[in-house]
Amino acid sequence: MNYADQEAYMRECLSLAAQAIGDTSPNPLVGAVIIKNDKIIGKGYHHKSGEPHAEVEAINNCNESVEGATLFCNLEPCCHTNKKTPPCAQFLVEKKIAEVYIGMLDPNPAVAGSGVELLKSQGIKVHVGILEDQARELNKVFIKNMASSLPYVHVKWAQSLNGVFASYPDQDRLMLSNNDSLVYGHKLRKKYDAIMIGRETLNLDNPRLNIRYVDNQSMKNPLKVIIGDYEMMNKESTLLKSERAMTVIVTSSKYEKLIHDNVLFSDAQSIKEIFQALKTKFGIQSLLIEGGMKLINSVLSENLADEISVLVSPEIKQGKVFKLEQNLNQYKAQSKTLGNNVVFEYRKI
Amino acid sequence: MNYADQEAYMRECLSLAAQAIGDTSPNPLVGAVIIKNDKIIGKGYHHKSGEPHAEVEAINNCNESVEGATLFCNLEPCCHTNKKTPPCAQFLVEKKIAEVYIGMLDPNPAVAGSGVELLKSQGIKVHVGILEDQARELNKVFIKNMASSLPYVHVKWAQSLNGVFASYPDQDRLMLSNNDSLVYGHKLRKKYDAIMIGRETLNLDNPRLNIRYVDNQSMKNPLKVIIGDYEMMNKESTLLKSERAMTVIVTSSKYEKLIHDNVLFSDAQSIKEIFQALKTKFGIQSLLIEGGMKLINSVLSENLADEISVLVSPEIKQGKVFKLEQNLNQYKAQSKTLGNNVVFEYRKI
Repeated sequence: MNYADQEAYMRECLSLAAQAIGDTSPNPLVGAVIIKNDKIIGKGYHHKSGEPHAEVEAINNCNESVEGATLFCNLEPCCHTNKKTPPCAQFLVEKKIAEVYIGMLDPNPAVAGSGVELLKSQGIKVHVGILEDQARELNKVFIKNMASSLPYVHVKWAQSLNGVFASYPDQDRLMLSNNDSLVYGHKLRKKYDAIMIGRETLNLDNPRLNIRYVDNQSMKNPLKVIIGDYEMMNKESTLLKSERAMTVIVTSSKYEKLIHDNVLFSDAQSIKEIFQALKTKFGIQSLLIEGGMKLINSVLSENLADEISVLVSPEIKQGKVFKLEQNLNQYKAQSKTLGNNVVFEYRKI
Repeated sequence: MNYADQEAYMRECLSLAAQAIGDTSPNPLVGAVIIKNDKIIGKGYHHKSGEPHAEVEAINNCNESVEGATLFCNLEPCCHTNKKTPPCAQFLVEKKIAEVYIGMLDPNPAVAGSGVELLKSQGIKVHVGILEDQARELNKVFIKNMASSLPYVHVKWAQSLNGVFASYPDQDRLMLSNNDSLVYGHKLRKKYDAIMIGRETLNLDNPRLNIRYVDNQSMKNPLKVIIGDYEMMNKESTLLKSERAMTVIVTSSKYEKLIHDNVLFSDAQSIKEIFQALKTKFGIQSLLIEGGMKLINSVLSENLADEISVLVSPEIKQGKVFKLEQNLNQYKAQSKTLGNNVVFEYRKI
């Protein structure tokens, strides 16, 4: 098969996989297509943890025998058995798939090449590294989580041209965000397991931290995390009243007698330990930090952000100017327009 | 002729005219094409004040007779005689041009429709308003100057994400501007008659205010204007030493005995009066204000800017934060990317 066809099929896998962005945690995003006689005879993707893997869905979606067919898949087929679904590599062998094209090896130490080994040992031809950069980009959250005790962390804020921090109340939001910026912000929310804010932002803005303005077919409602002194949190806020079941409170252990569910007691000085605990205790593999300034400065000063998005509007506003204590030299930046707003997107170098 | 052809020929005029951007002051930008038997038989544009008008150049560039031909021109042909070149409308009549398509009427009160009248009175068919918006945009400086005692004013500054003002010294410029931003800034310089800075910027940055990084075939070297207390200006700066002949000093009349050439003595409190005097005395019809903050705030507080360009880099810098005393509500903004920098462009509503 020539390179152009290989890449075209792999692009189809990536685009299938991307349909489940935000829905598969803690699993990776995977898409698969089955090719026979130069035609796609089946497609599939992993929709959500506990549901079939992409390879299985693609094979099951075929209306003809897959014997001798070629499978494309952006991630190495799994071969480990300590999980909700049976291993895919074995399934491909059983179904007599003849050739497999893979975007990237599975960074999961339980797989990490042994899926490929199993396929090869059964006489299946295997090619690894088709559109590998794109495959890695798509599963950046999964890769980080496999390699680290920390979740993948994305910091986001919006500011006016003169650095005045945007807050959430509807009247302010309307002043600072155009529709493209709102869509951008809610697309981010859809991607992450949880959204975290500080106590002052809770009280000042009373945000809902849900997903609006974008397609949310899976009805995802991300976890919300509030950090700060519990006593000072506004108990009448939306998150602590109607959304309490989806809200984790991170606060001092001195409130152990007051709070019983969805709470992480921590007297740690470092945000790093808190992020690790949020991952261990609540399975949070990806975290969007939406403010305020104090929390953002803590996260950045501990060098914990994998990505940063700063939305800038062309307005001059009166208000508190956001003072960042760090430079951002350890990040590579790019810019995009969002209507007449812009976003600077930073990735850790 | 159908609309698509009319617009295609007018686009050609606009693009010819635009080749002389920055070079024609105080004249407008004008391009012309001559059509015969559905083919362009001649093109021309106005290169510079004192040189032939576009219509004349286009006709002279034809290798065949223009009798019965159609002329396209983004601005109404002139009919006034108190100027360096003979009137074009009369020339078109003499050359027996049959039909004329015009982008916009000449806002010059000495023409303003009478060019069209003259053509019509001689039996030439005339159509006005082809791509008029684009024609007006191209000649916004000329239009403003015909309607106002003020020059067209464009304010530009560059800042980091956190609002720290960029200054000129090479080391700082390199930190704050990528190549696309530099090209953007020098393209602006090429468009304007003069570039103005305040005394503090002169002393701190010692800028050259010349045109680099962009095509400058006409070798344009814009006038430079420095405003402030003469005694406090750095006499060793490039502008006051090697570029003194191209530099106008705006300062208090108490220095009348010290400075003799290229000077505007003004004790006016308002920048408006100074702009008017710069236009009257030095023929400055368009002015690019490049800083510092004090001058920019004065210009904006008197509501004198027709356009504003703010370049923003994704960096966090230590330094003086630019405090704008005005909001920019009376402007319509758009944003563009310049590599990983952005520019917000504001136009007065």
